[in-house]
Amino acid sequence: MVNHSDPQLDCLFHALADPTRRHMLQRLAQTPQTVSALAEPFAMSLAAASKHIKVLERAGLVQREVQGRTHTCRLDAHPLHGGLEWIRHYERFWTDRLDTLEALLQAEDRDAAAPRRSIRKPPRKPKRSTP
Amino acid sequence: MVNHSDPQLDCLFHALADPTRRHMLQRLAQTPQTVSALAEPFAMSLAAASKHIKVLERAGLVQREVQGRTHTCRLDAHPLHGGLEWIRHYERFWTDRLDTLEALLQAEDRDAAAPRRSIRKPPRKPKRSTP
Repeated sequence: MVNHSDPQLDCLFHALADPTRRHMLQRLAQTPQTVSALAEPFAMSLAAASKHIKVLERAGLVQREVQGRTHTCRLDAHPLHGGLEWIRHYERFWTDRLDTLEALLQAEDRDAAAPRRSIRKPPRKPKRSTP
Repeated sequence: MVNHSDPQLDCLFHALADPTRRHMLQRLAQTPQTVSALAEPFAMSLAAASKHIKVLERAGLVQREVQGRTHTCRLDAHPLHGGLEWIRHYERFWTDRLDTLEALLQAEDRDAAAPRRSIRKPPRKPKRSTP
C-alpha cells in the first residue's frame, strides 16, 4: 500500500515543482558542480539560487560536500524512486483508458472494412407493370 | 529530451506535494465523489478542502461535473504520465548505484567463499637435523 502522508514525498514533489530546480537536477546529472557554477546560468542572485539548492537538499536530491570555501553539489537520485513508485500506483488508470481507446479504434477499423449491410438499401424489386 | 520548463510539470508536482491532495487522489481512484464527500474525512473547512480540489483541477488530475448544486469530482490520472516520464529519465542513476552495490556484495561473497591463500602461512619445511 502506498503511504499518502509520507513527508519525504511532500519534500520530493515540492522540490520537483519548480523549473529552476528541475534544471539544476539535470545539470547535476551530468557532473557534480560548485554552488556558484550551478547558479550561473540562471537569471537570479546567488542567494536565490542557494535557496533552490537548499530545497533540493531537504528532499535528499542533492548532497553537498564542503572543502574550505568550496561547496560541491552532487545529485542523489535515490529519493526519486519513492516518487516513481507513488505515481506508478496510478499507472493502470491511464493504461486502462489507452487500452479502451485502442479497442474502440480497432472496432471502428473493423466496421470500416466490413461491408455496410445496414446502410445498403435492399435491392429494388422490379415494378410490376400494371396489366 | 525531457523538457524541464514544462509548466504542466510545475502544476502536477505542486499538486502532489501535499498529503491531503495525495489522499484525495487515492479516494477518487476508488470512485468519483461529490466535493463535500471528498472533503468529509479531513479535519478542515469545506473552503480549505475546495482549495485543495482546485489545485488538483489546475493540474488536470480532477475533472469536475456540475449538475445543479452537485459538483462531482472524477480522477483523471493522465497528467501523472508526464511526471512518471520525467522521473524515469533519472532512473538509471539509482539503478546504476544498486548494480554497483550488488556487484560489490557479490565480490565480497566470492572472497569469503574462496580459500584465503594470502593469509595462510606457507607449509613448514622440515628442519634439517644437524649432522
